[in-house]
Amino acid sequence: MTEKNISNIAIHTITNRPWTTEQCIEEYSKAGIGGITFWRYSFEGRDPKKVGEHARNSGLNVVSVARGGFFAAESKEDREKAIDDNKKAIDETHAVGAPSLVLVCGSSKHQSLDTSRGQIQDGIAECLEHAKDAEVILAIEPLHPMYAAERSAINSMAQANTICENLDNHPNVGVALDVYHTWWDEKLSEEISRSFNNGNLTSYHICDWLSPMEDMLNDRGLMGEGSIDVNQISRWVAESGFTGFHEVEIFSERWWKIDQHDYLNKIISYFE
Amino acid sequence: MTEKNISNIAIHTITNRPWTTEQCIEEYSKAGIGGITFWRYSFEGRDPKKVGEHARNSGLNVVSVARGGFFAAESKEDREKAIDDNKKAIDETHAVGAPSLVLVCGSSKHQSLDTSRGQIQDGIAECLEHAKDAEVILAIEPLHPMYAAERSAINSMAQANTICENLDNHPNVGVALDVYHTWWDEKLSEEISRSFNNGNLTSYHICDWLSPMEDMLNDRGLMGEGSIDVNQISRWVAESGFTGFHEVEIFSERWWKIDQHDYLNKIISYFE
Repeated sequence: MTEKNISNIAIHTITNRPWTTEQCIEEYSKAGIGGITFWRYSFEGRDPKKVGEHARNSGLNVVSVARGGFFAAESKEDREKAIDDNKKAIDETHAVGAPSLVLVCGSSKHQSLDTSRGQIQDGIAECLEHAKDAEVILAIEPLHPMYAAERSAINSMAQANTICENLDNHPNVGVALDVYHTWWDEKLSEEISRSFNNGNLTSYHICDWLSPMEDMLNDRGLMGEGSIDVNQISRWVAESGFTGFHEVEIFSERWWKIDQHDYLNKIISYFE
Repeated sequence: MTEKNISNIAIHTITNRPWTTEQCIEEYSKAGIGGITFWRYSFEGRDPKKVGEHARNSGLNVVSVARGGFFAAESKEDREKAIDDNKKAIDETHAVGAPSLVLVCGSSKHQSLDTSRGQIQDGIAECLEHAKDAEVILAIEPLHPMYAAERSAINSMAQANTICENLDNHPNVGVALDVYHTWWDEKLSEEISRSFNNGNLTSYHICDWLSPMEDMLNDRGLMGEGSIDVNQISRWVAESGFTGFHEVEIFSERWWKIDQHDYLNKIISYFE
């Protein structure tokens, strides 16, 4: 692989969950990885601003922060709490110097998906002014339909694109595409184009889908291990015009158990 | 609930897996259930024709047979084997006297979803003449996207409807709607209408979605236990014009462990 390709990869800190924030920065930098996406837990006990400086001083782009969202709730009080937490996440994203905050939009099993979807759009709308001031894009990540009951009522690229359009394609709203959540969708290619053409394709996450799957949350595969044709989706993303980072985001009890240097080498060899 | 409602319920034999075929027939009949859908394992060691007679003589409608399908495969040989097995399933469906055979269409993790989808449509097309002669409707059941890697590359009502239309809405092709697989889909209401208006809405399966879910296959909920607004979907189905059975199909290690008479009473009390 070329130097250019290496520099176009970013890794989410949760991919190497056993490592501290500082280890992630130093190891990714040493390996020649281009960027890093911080999970909010990576800021615990740290000043996000200093974390961002450390990353940039190590030659890494700070690509994104994961995650805000969880706007859907039965009570007004809980919805307002979510808005407050999202504003805090926006502030952290600004402080670390990332251009975008990924949103896992939320859902509640005690109300209809339609109701949750309305609350999500309203919640994002309420955060837009704050996001604009902080120069942060709120990137709606559609989640796999198997998470519709609790984690996200936004389950397709089409739904994420529609919310962006309903918000007049505001410059501070966007979409985070993840192959894990969307690979089954026969409309995927056209919805990627629609997203990019509206100026909304903010982030691109990669991993793989294992089958059988041991755990619905933490048994994702490394690219090439599973059923997703990641190369095909990456081609669609490139053809749309997207030139951003390919962000490796893998939750995996199995991979978290092995030596994380070996694992990082495996991740890199996928691109080779 | 009214007598009319009771008589509009059917139960899949797998819902009461601990019971023999004969126990299912006798217990459903005794309880006043209107219909029965036989899983193919229920014919093991039995003559499907006699099983059908037993059910009808007990006052039950024989609603459907589950299941054919699994058309997607890398090798031509495996695809031809699938066609042969589907023809056998069609013969069993004819023999038991059911008007339809439910199809779990199949997928292969070694090829693209597009390829599998093409093979599925071709496979169904190859069985249509046989189905016509046997007076059996092949009911395409869209499966939840979490099964796209192995069990079915048909993951939405839209896809099932499109296959029917591609086959000129042949009278022997149809769609089996299951709330478990489709409840997350924002297009569900309109796709139900599209299906009915094309003359393709053949079957309607109900259960519930549990969250957290212990097992991706065998942890379905009884209606009312989970996140699906089954009543809302049943209203859409009724509004489309569908007057067929509401078929209770629940795979559940948890429910299979309890006394099946108690469980049947719980199922019935949902409708009350």
